Amino acid sequence: MKFKTPKGTRDFLPDEMAIREYVLQTIKRIFESYGFECIETPAFEDLELLTAKSGDVAKQIFRIETEKERKLGLRFDLTVPLARFLANNPQIPKPFKRYAIAPVWRYEEPQAGRMRQFYQADIDICGSKGMEADVECIACAVDCLETLGFKSLKVRINNRKVLEGFVEIIKKKIPARIEFGSLEVFRAIDKIGKIGADSVKKELEKIGLPRKQIKDLLGMVSIKGRFEEVLEKGKELLGNIAKEGIEELEQIYEFSKFYGISGLLVLDFSLARGLDYYTGPIFEIEAETKRKVGSLAGGGRYDSLVELLGGRATPATGISLGIERIVEIMKEEMELPKTKIKAFIANVDEKVKPQAIKIAQRLRKDGISCQTDVMNRSLTKQLEFADGLGIPFVVIVGEKELKSKKFKLKDMKKNVEKELSLEQIINILKESKQK
Amino acid sequence: MKFKTPKGTRDFLPDEMAIREYVLQTIKRIFESYGFECIETPAFEDLELLTAKSGDVAKQIFRIETEKERKLGLRFDLTVPLARFLANNPQIPKPFKRYAIAPVWRYEEPQAGRMRQFYQADIDICGSKGMEADVECIACAVDCLETLGFKSLKVRINNRKVLEGFVEIIKKKIPARIEFGSLEVFRAIDKIGKIGADSVKKELEKIGLPRKQIKDLLGMVSIKGRFEEVLEKGKELLGNIAKEGIEELEQIYEFSKFYGISGLLVLDFSLARGLDYYTGPIFEIEAETKRKVGSLAGGGRYDSLVELLGGRATPATGISLGIERIVEIMKEEMELPKTKIKAFIANVDEKVKPQAIKIAQRLRKDGISCQTDVMNRSLTKQLEFADGLGIPFVVIVGEKELKSKKFKLKDMKKNVEKELSLEQIINILKESKQK
Repeated sequence: MKFKTPKGTRDFLPDEMAIREYVLQTIKRIFESYGFECIETPAFEDLELLTAKSGDVAKQIFRIETEKERKLGLRFDLTVPLARFLANNPQIPKPFKRYAIAPVWRYEEPQAGRMRQFYQADIDICGSKGMEADVECIACAVDCLETLGFKSLKVRINNRKVLEGFVEIIKKKIPARIEFGSLEVFRAIDKIGKIGADSVKKELEKIGLPRKQIKDLLGMVSIKGRFEEVLEKGKELLGNIAKEGIEELEQIYEFSKFYGISGLLVLDFSLARGLDYYTGPIFEIEAETKRKVGSLAGGGRYDSLVELLGGRATPATGISLGIERIVEIMKEEMELPKTKIKAFIANVDEKVKPQAIKIAQRLRKDGISCQTDVMNRSLTKQLEFADGLGIPFVVIVGEKELKSKKFKLKDMKKNVEKELSLEQIINILKESKQK
Repeated sequence: MKFKTPKGTRDFLPDEMAIREYVLQTIKRIFESYGFECIETPAFEDLELLTAKSGDVAKQIFRIETEKERKLGLRFDLTVPLARFLANNPQIPKPFKRYAIAPVWRYEEPQAGRMRQFYQADIDICGSKGMEADVECIACAVDCLETLGFKSLKVRINNRKVLEGFVEIIKKKIPARIEFGSLEVFRAIDKIGKIGADSVKKELEKIGLPRKQIKDLLGMVSIKGRFEEVLEKGKELLGNIAKEGIEELEQIYEFSKFYGISGLLVLDFSLARGLDYYTGPIFEIEAETKRKVGSLAGGGRYDSLVELLGGRATPATGISLGIERIVEIMKEEMELPKTKIKAFIANVDEKVKPQAIKIAQRLRKDGISCQTDVMNRSLTKQLEFADGLGIPFVVIVGEKELKSKKFKLKDMKKNVEKELSLEQIINILKESKQK
């Protein structure tokens, strides 16, 4: 009898958790600095709610067996539960700025970098129509990624209204008998970066678009240049169509200056994003990394979702950080602490164990994370153990040290010892940053 | 169409989350100061694993439908996943000190204070047989509860080996044809505090114990007095029986002196705890609260569980804090912050919005949580909104203020304003503790 983790899931050991914790705590601190507050919803929801607007994801829901009650499923994202929460709590003051950092579950075939349980970190501003809300979400996500050490960020921006406008233009030139939905077209266009323009052409042909119009459409969404230049060209193409979308993009660019991030913005008319519920601006953030990966964060405005799920009309926008991808890149490209433990208080023999414990208790009062021996081990074994865990400092406690009130502080990386008073040791440990 | 949270679950709104976060973050910080490291296991496990040693809880497992794969269930506690983790990771250095703060799920009839999703906060020391491990877990839990503001803590201690000893004594005086398991007797005795000695008598009669021996047994487990006195009387009663259990209790008392908690220890032979897997010391922590509640933390040693689940023999001990109960009491009896947001940066009119955002960005660099307006609201409306959320300070930004470089800092509780430089404001906000 030997049990394993279920298919598509895994355990995280302490050294990997130290990195995950560093990422999640950093993001949490920055989310909070922007005045986002956390709420918590249950891990499972009504299956009917989860399938209502989820499109393809509906097939990936973990279903829970219940006897008499309504059918349940594990949440597959944090946005649908938020929309349900807003529908249930119309009294909540607006704007409602909430963050959530939590696991979600998808019952799909596991692949490299795609597990059945994974974390999302979301911020959303609900109740505000203004583009400053979208920009604040973007600025906060940029702040998170820069603080984590990501370089050369690029924020790709587009607007679903503008995309609708482009589709409208080509629809005018197509016989009315050729019918197709804008969402199908968006989903195809969204793949340009992944599968290339030629493959997208084929997908659009399948949907039923004539070749001439496919060429026109791909021409429109491929405009390159500085934000303002691309915007100007888009305006010319659209004329009187999608004026609201263009204005929203203009405002986003203006507000981004206040946050000092306008230089990172790239207007990319080919950005579409897969989800059905977006209604206005959409955005994705990329960084320069050694290994090529897709976006590290993505989101957009979804002004109709809360109403669709039975609530009051509530404009809302938000962004989600892809925690698993961020952690993977950081593990590969950055130097990170292996443990949060700062010190091991070693006792020379069993007689001085009580004093070693007392010193540990003293350090803990100052918030210093430390361990003592609980295995009756020799000093050598204690040092080996501390080294194995990656604990950076060892304090050595013996009768001599207790008499002189000077203790050896051993720096495990540099392999040097110093004789210091307890107060000096506390100061050094408090100030040393774990890296 | 209106969706609700599933039966037995609920949403936590920002004001309640502020309290939960305060509790969980405090506990996490103290767990870490004792050198516990976190690991994470999936929310669901093999159903067979979950039911293997769970006794009555097996009926309360949320089952997940799967097509081709092994049957799964949501975890009902954090100890079984830990034992499975240890069985899967024999290489992990010992002692392995791990903490976990996470939700668990039980499919049972919801009651006041008992939901289907609830949090546990566990610390466990795995790989050490020594009683210092048990005492360290107790000391760390005591530290958590005292730091949270709980008063007059009492740590009730017993040992399963000693309880076995008492059962052995009475078994000797009962005809061999009367058969019963010790675990049944323990479960009955454990209820003395809840249902009273008379009801426990009846339960023991049902199990099949003769009246005389029930009287003897209840007499033995009801010894009261100082720790050392009760221990002495226990020793006399047991003679040569359960020597190991008595020694463990003696050691626990000795080690508790090093941690400065021996004065809180109460030796209570009637403490049994419900779970099947305990093998040695067991403990529960209570506090003096206005409303009478049971224990706030509980745990014990389980030296056989890892082996029973297919791993190497691994002695282990741990304690679990009852987060939901702790939060409930704190909400009733203590004054707690309603939000983590420190300041709202209000703009007098739309013209100065960019400057308000820049000031907010400056504050965030210093880790100060703040919001700005994203709704084009008047100054009055902004102040009302900040007050509604319980934000303690508002910084007012207008053209006059920008010229003079002095800004109004409004203390919302005291309803007083001061004109200050940005640096002064930052210092005040950094130093003010949210209460």
